[in-house]
Amino acid sequence: MLLTILDLVGIAAFAASGAMIGVQRRLDIFGICVVGVMTGIGGGIIRDLLLGIHPPTSLDTWPNFVTALLTSLVVFFAHPAVKRLAIGVVGLDALGMGLFATAGAQTALDHGAGPLAASLIGATTAIGGGVLRDVLVNEMPLLLHRDLYALPALLGAITVVVGSELGFTANTALVVGTVIATGLRYLALLLHWNLPTAPGAGP
Amino acid sequence: MLLTILDLVGIAAFAASGAMIGVQRRLDIFGICVVGVMTGIGGGIIRDLLLGIHPPTSLDTWPNFVTALLTSLVVFFAHPAVKRLAIGVVGLDALGMGLFATAGAQTALDHGAGPLAASLIGATTAIGGGVLRDVLVNEMPLLLHRDLYALPALLGAITVVVGSELGFTANTALVVGTVIATGLRYLALLLHWNLPTAPGAGP
Amino acid sequence: MLLTILDLVGIAAFAASGAMIGVQRRLDIFGICVVGVMTGIGGGIIRDLLLGIHPPTSLDTWPNFVTALLTSLVVFFAHPAVKRLAIGVVGLDALGMGLFATAGAQTALDHGAGPLAASLIGATTAIGGGVLRDVLVNEMPLLLHRDLYALPALLGAITVVVGSELGFTANTALVVGTVIATGLRYLALLLHWNLPTAPGAGP
Repeated sequence: MLLTILDLVGIAAFAASGAMIGVQRRLDIFGICVVGVMTGIGGGIIRDLLLGIHPPTSLDTWPNFVTALLTSLVVFFAHPAVKRLAIGVVGLDALGMGLFATAGAQTALDHGAGPLAASLIGATTAIGGGVLRDVLVNEMPLLLHRDLYALPALLGAITVVVGSELGFTANTALVVGTVIATGLRYLALLLHWNLPTAPGAGP
Repeated sequence: MLLTILDLVGIAAFAASGAMIGVQRRLDIFGICVVGVMTGIGGGIIRDLLLGIHPPTSLDTWPNFVTALLTSLVVFFAHPAVKRLAIGVVGLDALGMGLFATAGAQTALDHGAGPLAASLIGATTAIGGGVLRDVLVNEMPLLLHRDLYALPALLGAITVVVGSELGFTANTALVVGTVIATGLRYLALLLHWNLPTAPGAGP
Repeated sequence: MLLTILDLVGIAAFAASGAMIGVQRRLDIFGICVVGVMTGIGGGIIRDLLLGIHPPTSLDTWPNFVTALLTSLVVFFAHPAVKRLAIGVVGLDALGMGLFATAGAQTALDHGAGPLAASLIGATTAIGGGVLRDVLVNEMPLLLHRDLYALPALLGAITVVVGSELGFTANTALVVGTVIATGLRYLALLLHWNLPTAPGAGP
């Protein structure tokens, strides 16, 4: 129950980030909803494609879709207010990222993926929606060049895989993995951590 | 039989729109064919990936592939003439969109998708080729910011799903859905309908 | 054994090309690894999605992933040296292209794909990683507008399919197809072959 609620919180946060970019690009209401919904449920769809879950869960689950759609509509009509909440959105997004990374890794393990595949698919679940969003609006994916984002997602997914190998319960691994992923992301945001670029790549 | 012919008409219209953009970008003949073929059969491939149909039907069906390829070659050699027919191409494209949306929704229902998934997958079948085309040539997908395109596709797909729930035959639902989707698209083109952008998003 | 080694050589060459572009775009170390790994194993992932192999082999195979990751890290730390080897990288990339095209077609045949699907999926395996790389860094895919690249890949895949129809052993078809694809690519590079653009498309 808690997981379902947190999952919807993550979807809403991702959808809000997608819809905000749609507003900035002056898309129409339908385009904003498309980008918002794809950002909210896109990571889960990619996960299900990789695991062979047909049709993808999020396409067949009303709460997931409705949450993403309603969030996009709220952003459309109230984007100035949502913008003032931007720190809240970034915070929710970090929570969603952690949850998606760990839940994605657990789903992959449940479907027979090995440890490497489960780690990579978990991270992909967390970052897939944002990559879809950026490709759709024709920008280089943010995760490739700003902030520490994909690394915490990968660490959260790895935590679940290692926890499973060590015999921890799924719930324990999910909580610990999410705390690690989301916490690391918060720290990176607070302390402006960045990873190095290549030495001597020029200005 | 009629459906097969109309399906190929839709593939040809989509392929022509993709190849025309390839010509404008001065791609070579092979690049034009790649963009044309991907635009023509890409929506069906995405549909099959979502439904777990392996390998995707359009990759394994000569008429679909050959139609898309020949259309691309015709555009390559005769693009000025095709350009003069542009209104015809837009009209065929609207017909293809309606057909793909309804046939995609029906295929999804046939493969066990629920009503939400069938509606979304139907719309995705109709718009997927165009999105692939725009991502390949590095443009923001047209459907996100111009004309009423994706909404008619979604309504056509929903018509098929509702018709199936109400017990109509698949053929009836396909015809009614296509008339609704394609008709709405024609009206939007004729009357220059657009959806609103977000209030106060600034110029 | 030889095939496995050559397969890893191909992954390394593709990963190097992806990581080099990441360095040029001044991505951070993680972004460079993401682009490098996706370029190295992306073609195989797309092939497996099209064939319904879940989870994709390359996500679940340590040598493939580690090869792509280590290559990306080498490029990160030693990109000036790698750049001086650029002709070597292009050569390895041509070898990888040929190997992926033929091995992809053979894998498709082994999974029940028909001759058309096997040819198209083989070519997709060879060019998919490069397309992912270019979409990720927000560029129009190189294969669409430069050099003869996708056509040799398609010919290599077709060779495997025709060889299978004619009753040749898989190994023979793989070798002949790779020689054709890679050899044609080398010739195109040496002789600066290009395909024509559309007549009268304007300057």
